[in-house]
Amino acid sequence: MKTARVFRLSMDHPGDLSELETLISSGTIAASEVVAIIGKTEGNGGVNDFTRGYFTQTLMALLSKHLGKPARQLIHEIPCVLSGGTEGVMSPHYSVFAIREVDASARQFPSALAIGTAFSPPVAAEDVGRRAHVESVAAAVRRAIANAGIDNLSDVHFVQVKCPCVTVARAAAAIAAGKTLLTNDPNKSMALARAAGAFGVALALGEIKASDFSDASLLSDFSIQSPRASISSGVEVESNEVIVLGNSSAWAGPLRISHRPMSDALDIGGIVNVLADLDIKANPQVSAMDAARIACVLVKCEPDRRGKVRGNRHTMLDDTDINAQRHIRGAVAGLVAGVVGDGRIFVSGGAEHQGPDGGGLIAVIASQQRGA
Amino acid sequence: MKTARVFRLSMDHPGDLSELETLISSGTIAASEVVAIIGKTEGNGGVNDFTRGYFTQTLMALLSKHLGKPARQLIHEIPCVLSGGTEGVMSPHYSVFAIREVDASARQFPSALAIGTAFSPPVAAEDVGRRAHVESVAAAVRRAIANAGIDNLSDVHFVQVKCPCVTVARAAAAIAAGKTLLTNDPNKSMALARAAGAFGVALALGEIKASDFSDASLLSDFSIQSPRASISSGVEVESNEVIVLGNSSAWAGPLRISHRPMSDALDIGGIVNVLADLDIKANPQVSAMDAARIACVLVKCEPDRRGKVRGNRHTMLDDTDINAQRHIRGAVAGLVAGVVGDGRIFVSGGAEHQGPDGGGLIAVIASQQRGA
Amino acid sequence: MKTARVFRLSMDHPGDLSELETLISSGTIAASEVVAIIGKTEGNGGVNDFTRGYFTQTLMALLSKHLGKPARQLIHEIPCVLSGGTEGVMSPHYSVFAIREVDASARQFPSALAIGTAFSPPVAAEDVGRRAHVESVAAAVRRAIANAGIDNLSDVHFVQVKCPCVTVARAAAAIAAGKTLLTNDPNKSMALARAAGAFGVALALGEIKASDFSDASLLSDFSIQSPRASISSGVEVESNEVIVLGNSSAWAGPLRISHRPMSDALDIGGIVNVLADLDIKANPQVSAMDAARIACVLVKCEPDRRGKVRGNRHTMLDDTDINAQRHIRGAVAGLVAGVVGDGRIFVSGGAEHQGPDGGGLIAVIASQQRGA
Amino acid sequence: MKTARVFRLSMDHPGDLSELETLISSGTIAASEVVAIIGKTEGNGGVNDFTRGYFTQTLMALLSKHLGKPARQLIHEIPCVLSGGTEGVMSPHYSVFAIREVDASARQFPSALAIGTAFSPPVAAEDVGRRAHVESVAAAVRRAIANAGIDNLSDVHFVQVKCPCVTVARAAAAIAAGKTLLTNDPNKSMALARAAGAFGVALALGEIKASDFSDASLLSDFSIQSPRASISSGVEVESNEVIVLGNSSAWAGPLRISHRPMSDALDIGGIVNVLADLDIKANPQVSAMDAARIACVLVKCEPDRRGKVRGNRHTMLDDTDINAQRHIRGAVAGLVAGVVGDGRIFVSGGAEHQGPDGGGLIAVIASQQRGA
Repeated sequence: MKTARVFRLSMDHPGDLSELETLISSGTIAASEVVAIIGKTEGNGGVNDFTRGYFTQTLMALLSKHLGKPARQLIHEIPCVLSGGTEGVMSPHYSVFAIREVDASARQFPSALAIGTAFSPPVAAEDVGRRAHVESVAAAVRRAIANAGIDNLSDVHFVQVKCPCVTVARAAAAIAAGKTLLTNDPNKSMALARAAGAFGVALALGEIKASDFSDASLLSDFSIQSPRASISSGVEVESNEVIVLGNSSAWAGPLRISHRPMSDALDIGGIVNVLADLDIKANPQVSAMDAARIACVLVKCEPDRRGKVRGNRHTMLDDTDINAQRHIRGAVAGLVAGVVGDGRIFVSGGAEHQGPDGGGLIAVIASQQRGA
Repeated sequence: MKTARVFRLSMDHPGDLSELETLISSGTIAASEVVAIIGKTEGNGGVNDFTRGYFTQTLMALLSKHLGKPARQLIHEIPCVLSGGTEGVMSPHYSVFAIREVDASARQFPSALAIGTAFSPPVAAEDVGRRAHVESVAAAVRRAIANAGIDNLSDVHFVQVKCPCVTVARAAAAIAAGKTLLTNDPNKSMALARAAGAFGVALALGEIKASDFSDASLLSDFSIQSPRASISSGVEVESNEVIVLGNSSAWAGPLRISHRPMSDALDIGGIVNVLADLDIKANPQVSAMDAARIACVLVKCEPDRRGKVRGNRHTMLDDTDINAQRHIRGAVAGLVAGVVGDGRIFVSGGAEHQGPDGGGLIAVIASQQRGA
Repeated sequence: MKTARVFRLSMDHPGDLSELETLISSGTIAASEVVAIIGKTEGNGGVNDFTRGYFTQTLMALLSKHLGKPARQLIHEIPCVLSGGTEGVMSPHYSVFAIREVDASARQFPSALAIGTAFSPPVAAEDVGRRAHVESVAAAVRRAIANAGIDNLSDVHFVQVKCPCVTVARAAAAIAAGKTLLTNDPNKSMALARAAGAFGVALALGEIKASDFSDASLLSDFSIQSPRASISSGVEVESNEVIVLGNSSAWAGPLRISHRPMSDALDIGGIVNVLADLDIKANPQVSAMDAARIACVLVKCEPDRRGKVRGNRHTMLDDTDINAQRHIRGAVAGLVAGVVGDGRIFVSGGAEHQGPDGGGLIAVIASQQRGA
Repeated sequence: MKTARVFRLSMDHPGDLSELETLISSGTIAASEVVAIIGKTEGNGGVNDFTRGYFTQTLMALLSKHLGKPARQLIHEIPCVLSGGTEGVMSPHYSVFAIREVDASARQFPSALAIGTAFSPPVAAEDVGRRAHVESVAAAVRRAIANAGIDNLSDVHFVQVKCPCVTVARAAAAIAAGKTLLTNDPNKSMALARAAGAFGVALALGEIKASDFSDASLLSDFSIQSPRASISSGVEVESNEVIVLGNSSAWAGPLRISHRPMSDALDIGGIVNVLADLDIKANPQVSAMDAARIACVLVKCEPDRRGKVRGNRHTMLDDTDINAQRHIRGAVAGLVAGVVGDGRIFVSGGAEHQGPDGGGLIAVIASQQRGA
């Protein structure tokens, strides 16, 4: 029987993996148990944010040393999803997801946190942001769900996908080969790729059917959305990388996950409700004892495209000095951290089709064991 | 008998006073009733934030037109306190404080919101940040309290002071006259001036005694603080400008004010408690009906100087791209707006000695009348 | 006979017109002689740069006071073209263009600086960025040339146009009226409007013919460009506002203008050559005596869309912290200021179709009189 | 006999050392010949610029692989000096300094570029910014000069020093040990450390005598300066790391170095003169043939503390959105790149006591061989 473990670790800078090194050296985690990483690094979260690459290089070198496999192989086996930007009260940290075999007698609860990962084949540049991309994501998500041993799609609570986008080089190669691209602008293709990722998750989870959308629906029909999809996109990947988190009776351990959509950036109700799902009270703040049960907080959010939050004008989209995603991350993180009483939360922007338009989603992993 | 009225108005840009113009034109407010303005403009909140000057010029031209007095006179009669920076979910807005004479029979509640304002004589450059500055503020605060007709110091809930600082020109003149300045760096003098303002408020409110501090205590002994002081500093003023807000049985009307310290940037309890003081429940968010009773939300906050929030490292103080005050305003505004369900809140940084170190304060003005 | 005068004035902040006030009060300029303003204010140059509005409000109030006309009328009579962003060594300043009647005997040189201005009718939202817009600009430019009394198109050296763009409100009204817009995104419409302005100038100057382009050429065929067009676009105007600067034998006075294209951001040759056209040597820097002859320096530039400058990668387009236009303005201003030895130069970004792709243009106004 | 070689290499991102890898793999450079690196990475150049750490980690891993020594040892043997921030037209690049033994018959010129490096012992936190720090730098510089085989101090043209500063941890340890620090603010200590570095270079080069200064002179008496000192400071080093570049008859090869002070940010004369020293004409730009002779351009600059450049107000020091060092680097790089026709230049800020106040210095390494 498997048990999923989550270690939320702090870092002093994006190249500081010392806490993981200590856990591995002390035997608390075996390097071979590590299956995925989700973290927040202290960059700007934009195209020129190199804190993600720095962290990834350091992580893969560390695992390579312990596993005796080259880093360039590990990078295609262990999804490492990083969101740059620790605006406001957010604290740079990373969650290490590890799987350990345990005896079936170790089971404490009827169901527990289950983890599955998958990598799709490379996505052709001409497919980015189109149905073929959506289906590639959906297939990988289905494999990750199977891999996690989750039977019921309603038990899936969070699907993280890192999607490839078009780069200048890939665009040139595709055009030379006579292909037609949706866009050859890397920035536009990143948003398209995120949309394809969200559609793929919705398709795999049965939230939409293949006939519910066309290529034109991406970044246009915002009624199509999945409150369980968390998508990032980057030039550094060529395949879709998938991490599925849910609950399953096939897994042991005390952890459990739940999720809720957030209707907008002020939806404190969504936060309180997802905690209540896990039997954690926020009155108004989670108690220190209950906070210790929380293993991971995952949030997606978006500056409202229509320029208003609850009828009042916001200035995020017109700010030439601070990127709009930095604004919204800082605001939503302030709210979530205030409720849970902790700044070690993953709050990521770029939430197109991931939860309600202008809002997003929140997922929380917590121990079912009090006083744990 | 007097009644204090508060109008929270939105703007499309920092030169847009059209909502106030409409209220004056329609007779809802008489220009002569306006006694003070507190607002948030969409600049960067730093030295080169000209949205404050633009708004002030537009406001004074508007009032000048209606009052037949020159703008340069009004600027010394009507405090206009602006904080730049509407990070995240904050919405650019301004609160107009107006006083109207009403018949004593209009009284609805035993006590009601009371407003007093005062201007001190100019502060000499060599006095900035020293005891003489503290005493100048204290004297002006005492006059504003008297002017507000508040008998009991515990009925004062919020004291806004705008303090002069040292400019390059004033420093040069003072040095030429043989004076010794604490600093001739305008930025350092702004922090010193804010500290002097907070000490002056604490002294006037009897929170500290004259013997409790020396010049060296400013910006150094952070155990000295007033959770009712909200201080800004700017090169554009030469006198201390004071707005006192409290409750008094000598005033009529439905409004009432309360305040609470905020222990740190995650202190959601402080927010919920100040609302409870005004009989407003946040469960977890204020209901739309109760939100309509809220006339004004005033918050001061500060990125923790020690580099951590509740034991976790934050990155606000080391960010070369985004000023630390912009970070903390966005985070705390996200939390407060999430609780009250409204982005029209005044959240200002630079909270040295204004509430607990690393935290700040929150004051709320609300109607005591349900369904109002 | 007319003479054109140019006063390059400094400001302490965007609301500081004191130098112009002094010149008017002292009689050096009559308010009625002022026909146009071109200036650099210290904002960020983006959508949320309010230093332009602040300066314009202050200027129009000043002229209104002296002319006895309402500011809202003057704003449609006197073009005030401001570029935000004084990156690096640029110094905030504004050039006041004034016309005075002089006796024909005052003529010193065969030809002299000539100025013409014009305002087009309002541009419909559905026309922005289309042929109708191009033709509206061209017609206004022709009127301004006639108005300047310039007979030969080759004597026109600089045409500044401020073009209206689509705003959210205008887009909504046009769509409600059944019109089809090129875009309803204000930012995209600004670039389209600048392209239409550049095409309009090229058309009016005979650099291109009406049959040389279609709507699709704008922002796409960068071989079409005018090295005499300097275009800005803003939500605050509804008409095309035009300032034409050239040389004419019908004008008296010592000033003269010349221009040169700049092939890229490193084209120091273009700078040295335009100075040589005016008989000013840069060896390597203009001497103090010759620098005193320079009345105005006007530059347009652009971060190269292809990501390289002379074969080496630049990072301007991928920087999430600093806007690309701020980068390029700072760099090109550093070069121009180094050659002329003065930071009071107008360097503006957004140079699509204004000079060579990836480059731009430079125009200089200088006195033909040595020791003046 | 030794010959110094300089390879100026481009990178696609801060972790891209592929050009060096290629040179080593192809045998053009032996890893053991590499003695120092000076480069510009595309970060913000501030405290939270992790592009320097990312590059250094990648470099040391690469050299470690080829040399069979651990990276943590190499970091104390090979100075790697990086300046973050490729504002404007600057292109991310790094110069690899390598030394090769050649036969004395290979000598082509009477003297040639000579390189020496040295590491001082660790500097105690309580010594940072004091005479002991100055002397520690001076001793290391003297060793590096000896190590370079330069006999005449006037043949030294550029001394790069990376100085340790106070960190929170080092400050705490020193205070616990009863020591008194000049400051425990890391940012202030960085400026003090740079000042100590510049004084140390001036002392070692005989530009000042030990009796010419006291501790109080640092960051205060700006008449003390060395136009050959280029200092950076960082939390990542504990020792002073020194690279000395000069000319010596003991070295072979075609390269030669020269330097000039820059009196201010507009001093194009300094640039043209240092090129002339190397027999390179800029008229106004260096020809492509001569540009190919240039191996390295090294510049230090500073936003003028007095708020003006040649009498005109600049806005760099009051900008809350863009750090002043980013402003000045972009401007000076625009000027230098325009003269040399190439964006691969090292322009670094923080030039206290390194050249004239408000200015800085420029050093150029070029081949004496035409058509090389």
